[in-house]
Amino acid sequence: MRSFDFHIRTRVVFGEGALARLGELAHELSFTRTLIVADRGIVATGLADRAATLLEAAGIASFRFHDFDSNPDTRMVEAGRAHAAACAVDSIVALGGGSSLDCAKAINFVLTSGGSMRDYWGFGKASEPMLPSIGVPTTAGTGSEAQAYALISDAETHAKMACGDPKAAFRIAILDPVVTVSQPRHVTAVAGYDAISHAVESYVTTRGNQISDVFARDAWRLLERHYERVLARPGDLFSRGAMLVGAHEAGIAIDQSMLGATHACANPLTARYGTPHGVAIAVMLPHVVRWNHAHVGDRYGELLKASGLDGGEAPGERLALRLESLARVGGLPAALRDLGAARADLAALAAEAATQWTGTFNPRPFDATSALLLYERAY
Amino acid sequence: MRSFDFHIRTRVVFGEGALARLGELAHELSFTRTLIVADRGIVATGLADRAATLLEAAGIASFRFHDFDSNPDTRMVEAGRAHAAACAVDSIVALGGGSSLDCAKAINFVLTSGGSMRDYWGFGKASEPMLPSIGVPTTAGTGSEAQAYALISDAETHAKMACGDPKAAFRIAILDPVVTVSQPRHVTAVAGYDAISHAVESYVTTRGNQISDVFARDAWRLLERHYERVLARPGDLFSRGAMLVGAHEAGIAIDQSMLGATHACANPLTARYGTPHGVAIAVMLPHVVRWNHAHVGDRYGELLKASGLDGGEAPGERLALRLESLARVGGLPAALRDLGAARADLAALAAEAATQWTGTFNPRPFDATSALLLYERAY
Repeated sequence: MRSFDFHIRTRVVFGEGALARLGELAHELSFTRTLIVADRGIVATGLADRAATLLEAAGIASFRFHDFDSNPDTRMVEAGRAHAAACAVDSIVALGGGSSLDCAKAINFVLTSGGSMRDYWGFGKASEPMLPSIGVPTTAGTGSEAQAYALISDAETHAKMACGDPKAAFRIAILDPVVTVSQPRHVTAVAGYDAISHAVESYVTTRGNQISDVFARDAWRLLERHYERVLARPGDLFSRGAMLVGAHEAGIAIDQSMLGATHACANPLTARYGTPHGVAIAVMLPHVVRWNHAHVGDRYGELLKASGLDGGEAPGERLALRLESLARVGGLPAALRDLGAARADLAALAAEAATQWTGTFNPRPFDATSALLLYERAY
Repeated sequence: MRSFDFHIRTRVVFGEGALARLGELAHELSFTRTLIVADRGIVATGLADRAATLLEAAGIASFRFHDFDSNPDTRMVEAGRAHAAACAVDSIVALGGGSSLDCAKAINFVLTSGGSMRDYWGFGKASEPMLPSIGVPTTAGTGSEAQAYALISDAETHAKMACGDPKAAFRIAILDPVVTVSQPRHVTAVAGYDAISHAVESYVTTRGNQISDVFARDAWRLLERHYERVLARPGDLFSRGAMLVGAHEAGIAIDQSMLGATHACANPLTARYGTPHGVAIAVMLPHVVRWNHAHVGDRYGELLKASGLDGGEAPGERLALRLESLARVGGLPAALRDLGAARADLAALAAEAATQWTGTFNPRPFDATSALLLYERAY
C-alpha cells in the first residue's frame, strides 16, 4: 500500500438549510468583521444579503466584494485585497461557485502575506497565518471548498496559476443543498460534469492513495447516480445534497491525488476560445478514458462496480460510453468542432496542453503528441 | 441525506517505516519536551527507546510514563499527570495499543484543564487548550488514534468512562505497519476483530451519516480481506498496512456514528470476568448482527458487496457466518460459556448491558430484555 500523508483541514457542515448556521459558525471562529466574497450572480439572488443578515444577527459586521468574474485574475484579487484592507476585516466568507471560492482564498493570500498571486504559484509559499474563512458553495462543481488551492489567472500573461497553501483551506465548508436549487439548468449540468471528471481523473492518477481512492470512488458513486436526477428534478433536495457531497468528496480526492490529461487538454480550450471549463471537460473526458484504459489496471471497472454498473469486459469503453450519455443528458457538446475550435489550431493547443502541470499526474505518460491525438479524436 | 457535521482533526502519516519521521513531525509541531506514554510491553520491545532516540535527534527531550495496564484508570492517569507536570513537558507522544493512546489522551485532559477524569466524562468538557500530541498505534485495533475520546475506568466505581473533547485528538497519527509486526498472534487476532466490529457496528447505528458510511464501508472491505492474511503471514507488511488503515478508518467512522449493542453487551463481560474486549466482542457480534438484521435495511448486504461477497438472500445471516468464520481463524471463542461465564449471571449482565451508553445508538432498540436474549443465544 502506497505511503500517504493525509490531512482534511476543513470541517464540513452539511444539511438542508445549513446556511442558517452561518452566524453561529462564524461566531464560533471569532469572526467580528467579515469580507463576503460573492460574485454578482449570487448578489442578484439575494444570497449575499441573506449571509450579511445572518452574520449581523450574530454581531458580526460584514463588507462585500463582487468585482470579479468567472475567471478571477490577479487584478481582481488585488482589488479585493485593497477593499478588505480598507475594511480591516478579520475573516472571510466565500459564497458562490468555484470563482467566488478561489477569489476569496486568493484575497486571503495577498492580504495576509503581501505581494501578488504570482508569488504563491505552486504550494506552501505563504509566510504568514491567514484569516479564518468559511466557504459556502452554491454549485456542486469544483469542490474548491475542500481544497487548499486557488486557481487565479495572471492578468498580463493569462497563465492559469494554481496557488496552494495548507493555511488557505476554509476552516468550515457549509454544504446546503437549498442554495443550489436556483442554479440554471446549464450551470448545474456544467458544474456537475466537472465534479464527475474530478472523481474519474483523481481515481487513476500517479499520486492517488488509499484515502483519495475512498473519496474518489464514493464521489463517483454519488455523482453518477444523481446527475441525471438533479437535471430532471431541479428541486429534488436529496439529489442536490448528494451532488454537493459528491463534489466535495471529489475535491478532497483532488487535494490528495491531483488530476490528469482531461484537465490538461481542457485548459487550453478555455484559454483560447473562452469555453466554460466544464464544457471543455465534457468534450475531452471520454476520449481520455479510452486512451488511458490499458494503463489503469481495473480502476475503471472498480468505478463501474461502485455505482452498481457492470464492470465486466472493456470497462474503459463502458465508462466512456456512460460519460458520453451523462454529457448528452446535460446538454453538453460532444465534439471539439461544436466548441468552434478550428482544426488548424489543434497542434498549437496540443503544445499548450503538454505544458500543463496537471498532465504530469496522468496514469499514461502525456505529451504534445498524445494531446494532439486526443484533440483529433475529440474533434 | 441526513445532516452531518464532520471534522477530521488528525493528520495521518502512513507508510512502511513511517515511525522514522517521528522527530521531524514532532519538530514541525514545535515539541521541545515530550512525554512518551508507552505501556510496559512496548517498552520491552525497545520501541520506546527508538522513539526517544528519534526525538533526541530532532533536538527534543523526552520523558517516559508506563505505569498503567491494559485498562487504564483514574489513579494511573493521575500518576501520569504528576510525572508530566514534574517534567514540564509541552507535548505528548503515545506509543502502543489502545490503552497507551487512551492513557495519553487522558493525561492531556487533567494536565491542562485540571481536576480528575471524572470531570470529563461525556463530551467537550475541557476548558483549556491541550498539549499537541502524536499517536503511534502498534496494533490494528481500537482506532483510538483517530478519535477524540479516551476510555478510562473509575478506580473506585470501576465504571468505564468515555471522555471526549475535540482538543484531545492527536494532531498527527503515524501509521507504520512495521511496528505492528512483532505483536503476538493472539493480540493481532483480538485487536483486529475489535476493528472489524467497529466497521460493522458503526455502519448501522442510528447516528451514521454519508461520511461515516464511506469510512466504515472501506474499513470493512480492508479488514475483511486482510484479517486472515495477516494471521497466516504475520510478516506481510502489505496486509499489516491494510489492517492499520482499516482500523483507523473504522475509528473515524466511530467518532461520527458511535457503536451499538455488541459493545453494550461486551463491556459487562470485561467488567465481570476480565474478558479481553476483542474476545467479548467476537462472542457477541454475530448474534447482534442476526438480531439486528431486519432493522438495518440492506446495510449488511452493502457491506458484503463492498468486500466482493454475495449480498443476495439473507445478508444478515451471511454476514454473521462470515464473522463467525473470521473469529475461528483468529482462534477466538465462539460461545459465552467458553469465557467462563455462568448462566446464572446472565440476567445481571443484561441489566448492566442495558445501562451502556453505546447501546442507545443500536439500530434495533436495545434494552435489558434484548441483552438477555442475546446473551442466551451467545451462551
